[in-house]
Amino acid sequence: MIPSRWIPLIGWLHGYRGEVLARDLLAAVIVTLMLVPQALAYALLAGLPPEVGLYASMLPLVLYALFGTSATLAVGPVAVASLMTASALSGIAMPGSAEYVGAALVLAALSGLVLLAMGALRLGFLANFLSHPVISGFVTASGILIAASQLRHLLGVEGGGHNLLEMLGALVAQWRVIDPLTLLLGGGVWAYLWLCRGHLKAGLVRLGTTATLADLIAKAAPVSAVIVTTLLAWGLDLGGRGLALVGEVPAGLPDLALPGLDAALWSSLLPAAILISLVGFVESVSVAQTLAAKRRQRIDPNQELIALGLANLGAGVSGGSPVSGGFSRSVVNFEAGAATPLAGAFTALGIAIATLTLTAPLAYLPKATLAATIIVAVATLIDLPAIKRTWAYSRADGVAMLATLILTLVHGVESGILVGVGLSLGLHLYRTSRPHSAVVGRVPGSEHFRNVRRHRVETDERLAILRVDESLYFANARYLEDTVMALVARQPGLAHIVLACQAVNLIDASALESLEAINGRLRDAGVSLHLAEVKGPVMDRLAHTEFFHELTGQIFLSTYDAWRALHGDGIDPTFACPARASNEP
Amino acid sequence: MIPSRWIPLIGWLHGYRGEVLARDLLAAVIVTLMLVPQALAYALLAGLPPEVGLYASMLPLVLYALFGTSATLAVGPVAVASLMTASALSGIAMPGSAEYVGAALVLAALSGLVLLAMGALRLGFLANFLSHPVISGFVTASGILIAASQLRHLLGVEGGGHNLLEMLGALVAQWRVIDPLTLLLGGGVWAYLWLCRGHLKAGLVRLGTTATLADLIAKAAPVSAVIVTTLLAWGLDLGGRGLALVGEVPAGLPDLALPGLDAALWSSLLPAAILISLVGFVESVSVAQTLAAKRRQRIDPNQELIALGLANLGAGVSGGSPVSGGFSRSVVNFEAGAATPLAGAFTALGIAIATLTLTAPLAYLPKATLAATIIVAVATLIDLPAIKRTWAYSRADGVAMLATLILTLVHGVESGILVGVGLSLGLHLYRTSRPHSAVVGRVPGSEHFRNVRRHRVETDERLAILRVDESLYFANARYLEDTVMALVARQPGLAHIVLACQAVNLIDASALESLEAINGRLRDAGVSLHLAEVKGPVMDRLAHTEFFHELTGQIFLSTYDAWRALHGDGIDPTFACPARASNEP
Repeated sequence: MIPSRWIPLIGWLHGYRGEVLARDLLAAVIVTLMLVPQALAYALLAGLPPEVGLYASMLPLVLYALFGTSATLAVGPVAVASLMTASALSGIAMPGSAEYVGAALVLAALSGLVLLAMGALRLGFLANFLSHPVISGFVTASGILIAASQLRHLLGVEGGGHNLLEMLGALVAQWRVIDPLTLLLGGGVWAYLWLCRGHLKAGLVRLGTTATLADLIAKAAPVSAVIVTTLLAWGLDLGGRGLALVGEVPAGLPDLALPGLDAALWSSLLPAAILISLVGFVESVSVAQTLAAKRRQRIDPNQELIALGLANLGAGVSGGSPVSGGFSRSVVNFEAGAATPLAGAFTALGIAIATLTLTAPLAYLPKATLAATIIVAVATLIDLPAIKRTWAYSRADGVAMLATLILTLVHGVESGILVGVGLSLGLHLYRTSRPHSAVVGRVPGSEHFRNVRRHRVETDERLAILRVDESLYFANARYLEDTVMALVARQPGLAHIVLACQAVNLIDASALESLEAINGRLRDAGVSLHLAEVKGPVMDRLAHTEFFHELTGQIFLSTYDAWRALHGDGIDPTFACPARASNEP
Repeated sequence: MIPSRWIPLIGWLHGYRGEVLARDLLAAVIVTLMLVPQALAYALLAGLPPEVGLYASMLPLVLYALFGTSATLAVGPVAVASLMTASALSGIAMPGSAEYVGAALVLAALSGLVLLAMGALRLGFLANFLSHPVISGFVTASGILIAASQLRHLLGVEGGGHNLLEMLGALVAQWRVIDPLTLLLGGGVWAYLWLCRGHLKAGLVRLGTTATLADLIAKAAPVSAVIVTTLLAWGLDLGGRGLALVGEVPAGLPDLALPGLDAALWSSLLPAAILISLVGFVESVSVAQTLAAKRRQRIDPNQELIALGLANLGAGVSGGSPVSGGFSRSVVNFEAGAATPLAGAFTALGIAIATLTLTAPLAYLPKATLAATIIVAVATLIDLPAIKRTWAYSRADGVAMLATLILTLVHGVESGILVGVGLSLGLHLYRTSRPHSAVVGRVPGSEHFRNVRRHRVETDERLAILRVDESLYFANARYLEDTVMALVARQPGLAHIVLACQAVNLIDASALESLEAINGRLRDAGVSLHLAEVKGPVMDRLAHTEFFHELTGQIFLSTYDAWRALHGDGIDPTFACPARASNEP
């Protein structure tokens, strides 16, 4: 028997009832309507034939329904992953060629394997190292790049370029050959969608519709645009007048087949697959957690890795491109009432029906309509005020965000995100290499101790108390050595140093050796080393070490105990009192 | 005027007196006696002609004396750097060839540039990521590898192999051709040195010598072995009887010349140069700090980067190989009374005199003598009990140490140290991705709060207090989200969550967004989020954020204030009291 831990579906399926089924079916119908044009649009964005978008919206959704832990996450092709796919494949083959499509399958399968491996090794924590500012800068830049890449479809010109400047340059260079019909239709759809997004909902609510329904109608606006422009293109033969159409989409379901096993191709796509996996995972988990919290539900990030991994593997063997959880579709799914992951499986069914029946009319769908849909959709990704907000809150985070944003725009998605992660990690390592610590003194007449630089406190030239505000491990152990030795060099009369360890949760082997070194060096310099407020688990470990036995000073329960015992040293012995453990020779 | 900060020599030279000069000169004589055979031996180990070791002991020492901050660090060729040099160059050219020697110069110059760049960018903290267990495992493995590589000189056979198994295999395969004369002489020297190291000092002390003098005499034992075996080889013409000798060493000082500027060679040696620099820097700083502390002096790690960088650059332009601070020579230098870095410059002078006058006799020095010297010297590097000690203290550190040790032995120095650093970093990232936190309850009748799992405390099913024990930043922010949402999912009656932040020194932009997400999700779930014990600087930053204004709960000065205000929630309103800042709607 397979435990429900690995296939969450088993856990909730036996409680499945008619009422829940009805909710899931309704959500699936609405998400299907939204997904058909999006699937085609994101395939266009990724440089792939339109059917690849539809194929990526079938088997992956069924696999996620079986293995995922979020009831409402809508998996499938998404904007950012499609942009990253286009970027990864651009050096491999000509967009739209059989080789290019084959490489997309490999990329999906590889992303799936990367996610599965991370899930099996419980490496979900690695995604934490994509910091919020980096993700935010990257997503904003992606939105701008996507919008720029779609402009050519609105203008009916050839595009090109791998970064924002090249893209805009290519458009400007062709301003004389802009196709008026394409611009009219594309611009019209764009204006319509923009108005719907901004004002339709408010208008409907004013007319008495409920807010939820109004929201759903507003979000279905792209469907109406697709239907109307497809009918126009068919009825007026706009394709014959120069309007670019989607063209023939093969009817029928995808064949199952393993992607090509070209080792050189696999290894050249691996870095991109890792980045797509990480970005997709972070975005999916963040959407899923936000939605789950609204119903006091929980998702399991490590299980999500497995489910998203299988979904991508499914995409790779069924003719699809990389998939992840989409933000807008998941919100629609949630608001339409999806109660279980089965809603996703029903969506896959809806896409299958669409693929079997709608390919003939979809051939007349203008590409400009899809481009306008994408541009309006990605506008929500672009969050420029976040830059100002982040910069104001933390200069370091602001730098990481801006660097990611600018590099993604001018140099490409991969270098942008890598430099962002590198900057965040470097900053993190730099910060953790300097443990926060403060020399403290006694607040007169009390048992409290405060930073000598910020407060008027009692000090003692023969005694220094250093409050260590962080756990001690290899990254910061040497800095502590420096800090202590600087203290000794600065204060010639010093006879005792007390490390107050109330914030130390861990002392690793490196830090232990540093403490041994500090103890030895202080002994050579004629200074005793004492500890105070050592936590229970830390003390348990220390008790079996050489350091503990060679400690030149004592271990005090509280900083105040240390003060009472040592402050009197040589001045007024009546202050001294016995401490818990003494190793003084 | 160049400030003394950049050239520390300026700072102390004007106070230089006759008495200090005498101490420095004495130390220089003793270190020179020790360094001549070591310089030849380490050149042998690195696969370089003997004069390269001598050249690496002149200009680099002068440059370190000018720019270094340690009065006693003895710079020059060392065992581990020589092993790493041999490993880095083994794929480039035949040991001993002109190409091989040229590559060694490039390696030294590159190491120098890496160190200088780290110093200029103040990246010394990067060395912290070589954790103690990784360094220790690596040094032990290096010691074993070095000893194994020198056995062939004691046996008079051909050697070979890039790892321990191959080296021992090559020796076993040649057991039939072992040269008895070489084994006799080499084994004799080894036994003599081993006895001197173990027993000479104790014996001399028993005969009435002072401990320091006895120690110096014991450490000069290799010099007597060199003199005796050189005289034997010359007098008995042992070279003619099959004993391998050092052979002709060019007399005179090295020429100054830039190393070859072959871009492919430079880039292929860069990774090795980075590793040699980091390991050398860590070892040098640790020796220098230990010795400086005994005299209550300080060294400046960033200035050490500059000084060691210039020393290596000097080696690269004067025919030398990579250098760093040696442990045993530095200790001898310290114990012999070296008072300023000038002792090192005088040592360089001593080596120059030796190079000008002693090359004729040194030609008769048996290689077996040098090999025995190396084997006895590196025995001090091998610290096997450290493995047991580290394993007992921390399983994770033990794994990193063992992995480094084993990989270095069976796969080579570079992969060993890289995997060790990777493991340490991975472990570090994993640890920091899970901030220590605890749900706390009130110690009955007090204002203290303790972990509910460890203590018998008062709790409240409508109120959860989570004590956060670490700073919050991108690496652990999402884990906090998980922890809080798990708490809500577990405790259905929950109405208030208090985050007690006494240990939070920093909330970065990612953590701020996580707090916003937590606040939003809790609001959706009908739970208020409160903060308590927020530190001043953290509060100052939070005060200007959206999070602060949208916080559903309050900010309390102390955990006890929060308890008093919220514990009564809906039960006994008389407990409620006004808090410092309320944003409740």
